[in-house]
Amino acid sequence: MLFSQEHDEPRRVLQKFIASDINPHVEEWEKDGIFPAHELFKKLGDLGFLGLNKPVEYGGQGLDYSYALMMAEELGAINCGGVPMAIGVQTDMATPALAKFGSDELRREFLAPSIAGDYVACIGVSEPSAGSDVASIKTSARSDGDDYVISGGKMWITNGTQADWICLLCNTGDGPIHRNKSLICVPMKTKGVSIARKLDKMGMRSSDTAQIHFDEVRVPKRNRIGEEGKGFVYQMVQFQEERLWGAAACLKSHEKTIQDTIDYTRSRKAFGKPLLDNQVIHFRLAELQTEVELLRSLIYRAAEQLVAGEDVTQLATMAKLKAGRLGRELPDACLQYWGGMGFMNETLVTRSYRDSRLTSIGGGADEVMLGILCKAMGTLPGKA
Amino acid sequence: MLFSQEHDEPRRVLQKFIASDINPHVEEWEKDGIFPAHELFKKLGDLGFLGLNKPVEYGGQGLDYSYALMMAEELGAINCGGVPMAIGVQTDMATPALAKFGSDELRREFLAPSIAGDYVACIGVSEPSAGSDVASIKTSARSDGDDYVISGGKMWITNGTQADWICLLCNTGDGPIHRNKSLICVPMKTKGVSIARKLDKMGMRSSDTAQIHFDEVRVPKRNRIGEEGKGFVYQMVQFQEERLWGAAACLKSHEKTIQDTIDYTRSRKAFGKPLLDNQVIHFRLAELQTEVELLRSLIYRAAEQLVAGEDVTQLATMAKLKAGRLGRELPDACLQYWGGMGFMNETLVTRSYRDSRLTSIGGGADEVMLGILCKAMGTLPGKA
Amino acid sequence: MLFSQEHDEPRRVLQKFIASDINPHVEEWEKDGIFPAHELFKKLGDLGFLGLNKPVEYGGQGLDYSYALMMAEELGAINCGGVPMAIGVQTDMATPALAKFGSDELRREFLAPSIAGDYVACIGVSEPSAGSDVASIKTSARSDGDDYVISGGKMWITNGTQADWICLLCNTGDGPIHRNKSLICVPMKTKGVSIARKLDKMGMRSSDTAQIHFDEVRVPKRNRIGEEGKGFVYQMVQFQEERLWGAAACLKSHEKTIQDTIDYTRSRKAFGKPLLDNQVIHFRLAELQTEVELLRSLIYRAAEQLVAGEDVTQLATMAKLKAGRLGRELPDACLQYWGGMGFMNETLVTRSYRDSRLTSIGGGADEVMLGILCKAMGTLPGKA
Amino acid sequence: MLFSQEHDEPRRVLQKFIASDINPHVEEWEKDGIFPAHELFKKLGDLGFLGLNKPVEYGGQGLDYSYALMMAEELGAINCGGVPMAIGVQTDMATPALAKFGSDELRREFLAPSIAGDYVACIGVSEPSAGSDVASIKTSARSDGDDYVISGGKMWITNGTQADWICLLCNTGDGPIHRNKSLICVPMKTKGVSIARKLDKMGMRSSDTAQIHFDEVRVPKRNRIGEEGKGFVYQMVQFQEERLWGAAACLKSHEKTIQDTIDYTRSRKAFGKPLLDNQVIHFRLAELQTEVELLRSLIYRAAEQLVAGEDVTQLATMAKLKAGRLGRELPDACLQYWGGMGFMNETLVTRSYRDSRLTSIGGGADEVMLGILCKAMGTLPGKA
Repeated sequence: MLFSQEHDEPRRVLQKFIASDINPHVEEWEKDGIFPAHELFKKLGDLGFLGLNKPVEYGGQGLDYSYALMMAEELGAINCGGVPMAIGVQTDMATPALAKFGSDELRREFLAPSIAGDYVACIGVSEPSAGSDVASIKTSARSDGDDYVISGGKMWITNGTQADWICLLCNTGDGPIHRNKSLICVPMKTKGVSIARKLDKMGMRSSDTAQIHFDEVRVPKRNRIGEEGKGFVYQMVQFQEERLWGAAACLKSHEKTIQDTIDYTRSRKAFGKPLLDNQVIHFRLAELQTEVELLRSLIYRAAEQLVAGEDVTQLATMAKLKAGRLGRELPDACLQYWGGMGFMNETLVTRSYRDSRLTSIGGGADEVMLGILCKAMGTLPGKA
Repeated sequence: MLFSQEHDEPRRVLQKFIASDINPHVEEWEKDGIFPAHELFKKLGDLGFLGLNKPVEYGGQGLDYSYALMMAEELGAINCGGVPMAIGVQTDMATPALAKFGSDELRREFLAPSIAGDYVACIGVSEPSAGSDVASIKTSARSDGDDYVISGGKMWITNGTQADWICLLCNTGDGPIHRNKSLICVPMKTKGVSIARKLDKMGMRSSDTAQIHFDEVRVPKRNRIGEEGKGFVYQMVQFQEERLWGAAACLKSHEKTIQDTIDYTRSRKAFGKPLLDNQVIHFRLAELQTEVELLRSLIYRAAEQLVAGEDVTQLATMAKLKAGRLGRELPDACLQYWGGMGFMNETLVTRSYRDSRLTSIGGGADEVMLGILCKAMGTLPGKA
Repeated sequence: MLFSQEHDEPRRVLQKFIASDINPHVEEWEKDGIFPAHELFKKLGDLGFLGLNKPVEYGGQGLDYSYALMMAEELGAINCGGVPMAIGVQTDMATPALAKFGSDELRREFLAPSIAGDYVACIGVSEPSAGSDVASIKTSARSDGDDYVISGGKMWITNGTQADWICLLCNTGDGPIHRNKSLICVPMKTKGVSIARKLDKMGMRSSDTAQIHFDEVRVPKRNRIGEEGKGFVYQMVQFQEERLWGAAACLKSHEKTIQDTIDYTRSRKAFGKPLLDNQVIHFRLAELQTEVELLRSLIYRAAEQLVAGEDVTQLATMAKLKAGRLGRELPDACLQYWGGMGFMNETLVTRSYRDSRLTSIGGGADEVMLGILCKAMGTLPGKA
Repeated sequence: MLFSQEHDEPRRVLQKFIASDINPHVEEWEKDGIFPAHELFKKLGDLGFLGLNKPVEYGGQGLDYSYALMMAEELGAINCGGVPMAIGVQTDMATPALAKFGSDELRREFLAPSIAGDYVACIGVSEPSAGSDVASIKTSARSDGDDYVISGGKMWITNGTQADWICLLCNTGDGPIHRNKSLICVPMKTKGVSIARKLDKMGMRSSDTAQIHFDEVRVPKRNRIGEEGKGFVYQMVQFQEERLWGAAACLKSHEKTIQDTIDYTRSRKAFGKPLLDNQVIHFRLAELQTEVELLRSLIYRAAEQLVAGEDVTQLATMAKLKAGRLGRELPDACLQYWGGMGFMNETLVTRSYRDSRLTSIGGGADEVMLGILCKAMGTLPGKA
């Protein structure tokens, strides 16, 4: 099985930290539209949670992927989706490629302080005109001696207004679109980097999201992760962990939504009995709990295979797809039973309804996941 | 058929008014969390739109219900759900019972100025502990000579912070819960009426919603609509129009959501072609359009019967139920195709996603509608 | 409204006939895999039901389409789907084009005896390699003097083993596939026509379905309906009525399924109470009844417009699509509450489960309906 | 992980046996409405497949549950649902309680020959008036000296017309309904046992299903499994394996349905391209494959826990529920893409559509599963 007793201690520490240092501030952060990433990440870094499965040489714990997954799942206990997502960007979206393929020097410069919680990281893939279609991005890095000179723009950048550096995907050549890209570590204070605007999102409000411009931004070529032209491939590898993370982070959140709904409907009476006594309600909640366990089982299976060194692209893709589907179904179904309270921003279920809607869109939309699966099944047109 | 050429002129006037006097202000009102009801209603009143099917004696147009339905449908072209709802409260939720059962004096005092747009009306049914279960409300009106003395509280009151009067359902006796209630017109500036708070809702943000307290509020008994003890029955009649209104108002809004999505996905390219060229997208939109036409057909059929003087409780209930179901399905489905833009508050589809979620809850939740239908079908327990 | 008191008498006659002359034999016909079409149609013809909206000159009643729709709806009371379908083929699928576009001579020869019930008709559109894609059929009629010589094959031909004539769509030229077809009346006893086999279907078992071969079948050119090359267009017109018919015929059938399920679950006890007392059951049935009324309302609206002479392609297409969706959802949902009895061939709900599955496939699959709607919405690729 | 290389050999043997000794006969057995259980079971017994996880003392292989699960999954490759179900009754439904709780003598008499394939077993729980509500059965065993005298009837008995013995649940006392039952091994040739009729089912046609009467049937008390009054508890334990089996057996069957549909739609052209090239088709199939993997993951997780000795009631219940849901969704979705061929009994997908419908009903209906889950979640009325 995926988890052993070894996981219990870090799990407990994290649960305690969420209860003491995160959840009490969530309301405020949601209202502010941002959370203090440097402050929170430093604390998480001190506890070792920003590098559970990162190399010991750069301050990580050197543990296997099961610990990262345990953490993703526990973060679901945070009373919003924005803060977990911001942490996930730091640990499972912006840094896996750097940890795997980056040079020692680059990892000392960007990975180590990100693990320590001194740096806040963000990942720059999406662009205003290229979301799920990653290969069509336009941001380019022109070679100029030992430097790259970067121009273009990125969109939907989580942590974008606070980040110290961005793991930037851009075109470093004119070749075929799957072989002309590189991942480059760009310090956000470099000249020419500017925050175009902070986005006003329906949900994930405690997490800042930015549109970022790059205007002739000069960085040394040694900031490139791994080989030139392999950026797309690296990002696809990185996406595996991003997608598993995204799926795992919703499990506890959904269970909390179910439990909150049980508690609320048990306490509310209508037509002379607790709302929960309505069969359509308790049956529906049982069905939703079943869907959560199905997703959890698939995630665990994928994680076991990932720990065993297998390629889990297909299972991770399925997990992300199902998480997206469930993110649209479960909070919506639960919200219904809260009546008017379900329409109030103060209600956690309502927040989950707004936050969870992102799962189907971010990190590759559901339709992109289906495309990946069709490709693996050999069912795309012209691929017989 | 329901509409004749006679409907064309008022329809065109309303369409023009929405385009010139409402939609240009919606962004601002959404941001403010309120719209200027007195100013807008006065204009609508001057145009005759606050009393299309109300008696001529009180300033109404004396037309049949088909005109009210035409108006509800056209209001769906407003770029938000809050403003139409506020207008619908004035015309189809707070005033039908008064128009039908109120004394001449009462109608002169409250109905006439509401039709003229001088008064803003609200309807007080829901309470903090009684939403869909209307019969269990606790607000009571104690008899004291020629007065009632009212104590209690109401919740989810649309127009509540701006209203001049409230059509209040309260207990005027101790009898069986379906025969102990009355509807009373209460001026909001009466001593003892206080706005407990303005609610922070997920959607319908341009519409103000209040929690209201009644502390020993004294009103003359002649403010009661119709007979004492018949309030529940009157409200059930009033609900018929409220529910048809709620269903009709979503038709054009949903069609706009579909059309906006067609336009957007036609303009956006991914993987080398317009998003709209994806079969899953254009097929899905066609299926949703089909669902809209199904709902429209049922509403028209109900309206024809209402005009013909028939009881349309069952069809109105079905319309409300389906509108609720569709309000959860359609904007969610369309939003998906907007990618990241679907998660931005600036996007109309996103607003519809937040606004439309109320349809399943307000005016009797989907589950209440199902209960009403089961009662009519004779399938409730113990009713064989 | 669609129906007047004028419809009451033929409705009652038909209801009585179904109860006395059809339903008592259905079990036997289902077992036999065929019903005696000539015998039954003669009776229906004598009663005037095979030509309600057909011209008086050929024995029809000369009534408007509302009567045909009334009949389609009433046929839903038959205890199977096969017999209504066979009747519908005679009245609304194989003969509308002939009635509208055929020469007087041709109508005397084929339409009059079909209205009288002396002839059994069938419609030949689908082929083994061309179902929903009508334009790609291969059966061809070669010109030879005053004759056509027909070769090819047709598939899924309802009434095919008993029919006296087939309304055959075939290629009469080499032009563009939408302009090279004609509809031809072919007597089934003509030399070269052979029944390849009677098909063993999952449902609709009382209706015989044939695969038919045409081997150099010679018929005079005057057997062609209307102009040469207009067959595709005529068939598209004919499809409007076929699709409305298909949708209308399922309404009463579904309501019977709901009512049977109410009766059964009221009589069965589990866990100490009638099954029907389970909220998930009576709520689900109420939701399904709502869906039936939605479909009915759309059909009535389409029929009103058809009577008024309007093109109802879009509404008829939507009706067919929704009927298909509902045919997969409703009997499946009801069957569930029958427990083991729901898996027994003797149960009517189970029969409906098998029969209704055809609605999504026959007469143009759901996906073809969606394509037609997309075309009307202008959302097909390359059609911006 | 659940499976090791040790599973490969028996898996291959079983796959080969299915291909050589089962699938070539399925068409015939489906037509006959029965398969030769004694002949087939003897072969399976000789290969050791009727006792993979049964004790070595009685001829079993003494392996852990993972082998039983592997077998259940592989049986899904059989071209119908009836034969796998019949085998599953022998191995995972009628014999687990006997193997676990039966006396040595009883196991020698009934278990050993069932493992050897000499005896065909069936399980007698359901009754005409008690399906999912197991506790309300009426069949009773009256104590008479050293014997029980059994009267009553059982319904939906798989293998019922061919079985040598039945594992019979009946009331052996008058106490509370969860503590008054016993499981008794009853030879079918005992005087007073009669096959009331063979049932005509919609699907699972190769499997015979019987209604059985018991009229003063005398069996020795030593035929009772374990303690008197514990029958309900034993059956609940036995249900765990039955339900996991039922869920596992559908996995490969569904994958075959998906693959058949891919192959068919790739070979069929409509509108100028293979059907499979329609995005709605290949996307839908990818989504269904995802659902299969979700279910598989949950089943594997449950099986791992069962092997580890844990109580898996909740996971097994969820697996059964999801299998039921998927059994209604997947074959229906795939069938659609077969057009007219999907309505033909000769098509395997159509057979799966008919067979799979049972999953939601047999072995405890979906609604019973939901009730069990609600009980575990503490959400049933009166259980706060």
